[in-house]
Amino acid sequence: MPTLSFTCDYNEGAHPLILQRLAETNLVQEAGYGYDSFTQSAREKIRAAVGIPTAEVYFLTGGTQTNATVIDALLKGYEGVIAARTGHIAVHEAGAIEFCGHKVLTLPSHDGKIDPGELEQYILEFYADETWPHMVCPGMVYLSFPTEYGTLYTKAELERIWDICQKFKYRLFIDGARLGYGLASDACDMTLPELARLCDAFYIGGTKVGALCGEAVVFPRKAPEHFFTTVKQHGALLAKGRLTGIQFDALFTDGLYFEISRNAILRAMEIKKLFQQAGIPLYIDSPTNQQFPILDSRQMEKLDGKVLFEIWERLADGRCVTRFATSWATTEEQVEALAQLL
Amino acid sequence: MPTLSFTCDYNEGAHPLILQRLAETNLVQEAGYGYDSFTQSAREKIRAAVGIPTAEVYFLTGGTQTNATVIDALLKGYEGVIAARTGHIAVHEAGAIEFCGHKVLTLPSHDGKIDPGELEQYILEFYADETWPHMVCPGMVYLSFPTEYGTLYTKAELERIWDICQKFKYRLFIDGARLGYGLASDACDMTLPELARLCDAFYIGGTKVGALCGEAVVFPRKAPEHFFTTVKQHGALLAKGRLTGIQFDALFTDGLYFEISRNAILRAMEIKKLFQQAGIPLYIDSPTNQQFPILDSRQMEKLDGKVLFEIWERLADGRCVTRFATSWATTEEQVEALAQLL
Amino acid sequence: MPTLSFTCDYNEGAHPLILQRLAETNLVQEAGYGYDSFTQSAREKIRAAVGIPTAEVYFLTGGTQTNATVIDALLKGYEGVIAARTGHIAVHEAGAIEFCGHKVLTLPSHDGKIDPGELEQYILEFYADETWPHMVCPGMVYLSFPTEYGTLYTKAELERIWDICQKFKYRLFIDGARLGYGLASDACDMTLPELARLCDAFYIGGTKVGALCGEAVVFPRKAPEHFFTTVKQHGALLAKGRLTGIQFDALFTDGLYFEISRNAILRAMEIKKLFQQAGIPLYIDSPTNQQFPILDSRQMEKLDGKVLFEIWERLADGRCVTRFATSWATTEEQVEALAQLL
Amino acid sequence: MPTLSFTCDYNEGAHPLILQRLAETNLVQEAGYGYDSFTQSAREKIRAAVGIPTAEVYFLTGGTQTNATVIDALLKGYEGVIAARTGHIAVHEAGAIEFCGHKVLTLPSHDGKIDPGELEQYILEFYADETWPHMVCPGMVYLSFPTEYGTLYTKAELERIWDICQKFKYRLFIDGARLGYGLASDACDMTLPELARLCDAFYIGGTKVGALCGEAVVFPRKAPEHFFTTVKQHGALLAKGRLTGIQFDALFTDGLYFEISRNAILRAMEIKKLFQQAGIPLYIDSPTNQQFPILDSRQMEKLDGKVLFEIWERLADGRCVTRFATSWATTEEQVEALAQLL
Repeated sequence: MPTLSFTCDYNEGAHPLILQRLAETNLVQEAGYGYDSFTQSAREKIRAAVGIPTAEVYFLTGGTQTNATVIDALLKGYEGVIAARTGHIAVHEAGAIEFCGHKVLTLPSHDGKIDPGELEQYILEFYADETWPHMVCPGMVYLSFPTEYGTLYTKAELERIWDICQKFKYRLFIDGARLGYGLASDACDMTLPELARLCDAFYIGGTKVGALCGEAVVFPRKAPEHFFTTVKQHGALLAKGRLTGIQFDALFTDGLYFEISRNAILRAMEIKKLFQQAGIPLYIDSPTNQQFPILDSRQMEKLDGKVLFEIWERLADGRCVTRFATSWATTEEQVEALAQLL
Repeated sequence: MPTLSFTCDYNEGAHPLILQRLAETNLVQEAGYGYDSFTQSAREKIRAAVGIPTAEVYFLTGGTQTNATVIDALLKGYEGVIAARTGHIAVHEAGAIEFCGHKVLTLPSHDGKIDPGELEQYILEFYADETWPHMVCPGMVYLSFPTEYGTLYTKAELERIWDICQKFKYRLFIDGARLGYGLASDACDMTLPELARLCDAFYIGGTKVGALCGEAVVFPRKAPEHFFTTVKQHGALLAKGRLTGIQFDALFTDGLYFEISRNAILRAMEIKKLFQQAGIPLYIDSPTNQQFPILDSRQMEKLDGKVLFEIWERLADGRCVTRFATSWATTEEQVEALAQLL
Repeated sequence: MPTLSFTCDYNEGAHPLILQRLAETNLVQEAGYGYDSFTQSAREKIRAAVGIPTAEVYFLTGGTQTNATVIDALLKGYEGVIAARTGHIAVHEAGAIEFCGHKVLTLPSHDGKIDPGELEQYILEFYADETWPHMVCPGMVYLSFPTEYGTLYTKAELERIWDICQKFKYRLFIDGARLGYGLASDACDMTLPELARLCDAFYIGGTKVGALCGEAVVFPRKAPEHFFTTVKQHGALLAKGRLTGIQFDALFTDGLYFEISRNAILRAMEIKKLFQQAGIPLYIDSPTNQQFPILDSRQMEKLDGKVLFEIWERLADGRCVTRFATSWATTEEQVEALAQLL
Repeated sequence: MPTLSFTCDYNEGAHPLILQRLAETNLVQEAGYGYDSFTQSAREKIRAAVGIPTAEVYFLTGGTQTNATVIDALLKGYEGVIAARTGHIAVHEAGAIEFCGHKVLTLPSHDGKIDPGELEQYILEFYADETWPHMVCPGMVYLSFPTEYGTLYTKAELERIWDICQKFKYRLFIDGARLGYGLASDACDMTLPELARLCDAFYIGGTKVGALCGEAVVFPRKAPEHFFTTVKQHGALLAKGRLTGIQFDALFTDGLYFEISRNAILRAMEIKKLFQQAGIPLYIDSPTNQQFPILDSRQMEKLDGKVLFEIWERLADGRCVTRFATSWATTEEQVEALAQLL
């Protein structure tokens, strides 16, 4: 295996400060299930970062699990969730939402995003159809920020979607598996507190942003009743809650989460520039940590065996849309090595 | 909070060797979802420990999640699972099995165990009732080893239950959240390879036996088809599969898992003796890492604020059944400190 | 097959007036899904019978379906339903409640009934156990009226259970598969309007009380939001809603439902007397349409091939608890024929 | 309400011969749950009509219920079902399939049909995507015959789809809610026995073809194990199984089902001709009992208040795609009345 890999943002372990904190606290005896002091501390720090002292914060283990648990908790039994056709819940979660009994209602994807106008149109047409009580009622809009294609909603777009949700009493949930990389992007025109006010729930991704595992679910207003029990019911409750508590406590100490996210963005922009300089077209103009160069067979061969990346889509003309992802762990040396190869 | 706690076997972090391995391998770039080399290595070591080179091994994160995922994968849609009334899935998993659509069919608990004779009787009576097609068909027997009360099935009992399962084409699944503590007990008359041959699936608990998180599911014969997808569907697939891979690789290197389990047993037996010497009756004669002394109010007061333990059940006469659990992390000093208090 | 059968209360088709109404209205073109005029009329008549002009009424097809749909609609995702160990949902519905994701939490059965004191005790103990958030939260009490053993709750008992439910914010649901037979019993000290005010939902059984199929679900206060869609989602919506509409319209015209229920009770009391006169003990002192004589092998033989009935339970001493059910269709001639046999 | 309605094929009650049989057999005492002699007889007649003496036949109540129950029984927990985007299960069943935990995977609709070539392409692309184990595995193809747009698969198309299913070990299920109208069409090039051999399961619709309710599920080879229990679990088991048994016994006596289906087709073709003669374009060239004329506002006004029909879709140019459905009950007089209006 080549020693250079840009296949994804979960290729390494955890940020060294996290490992250090795990080691330092290792033999402290603490209560289980998130009642430990580390988790309490992490909660407080996240509330501060979000700017909402009363926000409710829960720690789960992974992204699919978090999506399924939160969506199921926020939906009524007969409701479905609206998502972009390319949304993670619609494609790559093995039907975890349907497993909970809910249909994923898809809208067209615009570089991974749903269009607020199309969303409103969809809803208006839904209720205009007299047969709607025979269909799955939408009850939520699901967005990913950044999207699966690395793109970002603007604040204006998010406000518009939030307004639509308010109008129709739909909940708005933001999948922030890569939230740090979105907030750290130069293209992002929102702060974390601003984003938090424009949804009913979101999560701050840890697994892809420096942690071994873990996602911090934030309910800016109020968590669903007995959410702790729902988390357990979905098999998402860690006995050693300290594992996620310590990690998020470290990530939200002295702005570590934002700092390491910024590293991923800087490295991604360097890579983007490398491709542009090499005359390699980009499939999407992504401002975050995922870049999608379109490589022809000659270029693919050249890189083969020297650097790992993901093949995103094979085009009809034989070229490949590829994905190069950076992360908190990507070094300038790794980017330099890629530069040499191009 | 007192610095001395016997409340459970997940009060501390992980065995230091695990933390060390996490640190050493931290920046090695590896594939996700269990395709990393550490997970491969852990699988091989577990196959060797189990004595079945073709056993299929999967790593999940926690106990409830593992129970729900494995049981759902092994049952047909219309089947239920037989368990002791005190079985973890019947009581303390917030209905995770029912969430997957399956009923838990309960049998009387004998210090946490089901009685093979009663099991057979239950099955015979089930089919003797002409209305059985209107009822939930049993499709599996669930055992915990050790049980929630620290007790152990003998090899003869397990063989008998296995025979019954074979006869009725039921699957047999063993919840090994504390498997190490069971195998390390002097009262255990089975080896791990022997146990593995007497069931369709079991798991080797990591969370409670030295790991930060993680349970190794073993299918001695064959995993259910597309089990990887089922794991994902249940939200149980870690992106950084290395997290469980590295931990189990460490635990199954040089017999660490068995060695640290033995420590818990030695400490538990010392504690047991302490209570016996103090004339404190034990609720159950447990040969494993959980001990259940019955304390009166005077004894409770004496320990109050000095040592933490769990209250298991309040008896009508005012006394309390309590639980003192040891673990891989329990030290002789801690037992000594308890001795001083008693 | 013998021409005389007391096996159950669904041995015949429908009351002749129902068939007549089906025939008379057969070619009238009407809207589907319960928007037909017959269903509207039936709704109004049931509201009048219940004495609540704003009650919401829905028509479903069968008992298990109705139980599963209503319970699922009234419970939150993480909640379970409390029932007697002998309750229909706990035994004879093939796990339909668990299929919807909810656990059935069982209490001891006292001739088919739960004891209000035991109910309150159960709830208090539930919350007294600190680990309750790890367990299935009760969210509803399920009663059957009459019970599966033909017994009835008194008004005082129902009031007490209703008070407990109010106190703990649990919903109360009454399975009225045989409601008519309960209300028509001399032992019943409640009217239909009184019963309706002491629960959140109940259903008026049609299948067992004169209809070909159909159960009328009544929400005395308010139906769950979008219940129509939930009914469809559960596969319980008839395209030809007229089928249940016409039947319940007929049953609630000129008190037919109560009149034919009374017939079943009169015939049952005659049968009860027959057994008593023959010195045959009754397993339960049932005041409704199901009677449970305990027959010895000699008596069983005597009746064999001449009359059909159900074997309820085989006693250790070789005798059988049997069930003889009457219905709207049972005639004096049939009772007379049984008398000759005894 | 106008006395003339073509809104759907379930506007009336049942074929008179069915009502007659219900009346004749009404007081015959029979066993419940489909063990009655009428159901046995109906089963035999359907086996004969299907030409497979060993076919297994079950009777359920309605279409959505039948789709959900059969699909759930035939799929493994992690599998989804492929359907046309316009398929009934994808649109108008309130998420009943997702309620059972399964995703509906949609393909483009060609006048309601899926294209065999596109199906194969979809499957090949699915497995070509390395990430497929993270996605919902297809396990079944769902077709409706006729489709929701009144169109029919040719025998060659069905054979091709069947071959694809065999190749990938997918099950093939045909929703025959309007099967009679499909088989009776001049455009149908298959017999019932031929169709039966080209799928794993299908149902013969009763509700829309002459019955009050009821769908006959046919498993040409073998029903899923314990399907009776699955039916009960889904709330789909009628206590008075005689209701569906008698109806299907009548429908399959002396070819009644085929004869009354043919009536619907003849009337539909007359209506089609009426529209064509009036210069009204048809949205789809449907050879079955549903016709889709495109009416402009002047035409809509002219018919308003005089005849009922369904609005299928509003076109951008202000015109409406409408649906006129005939049925077993449509008379020549009704068609004549429509002719007068046009």
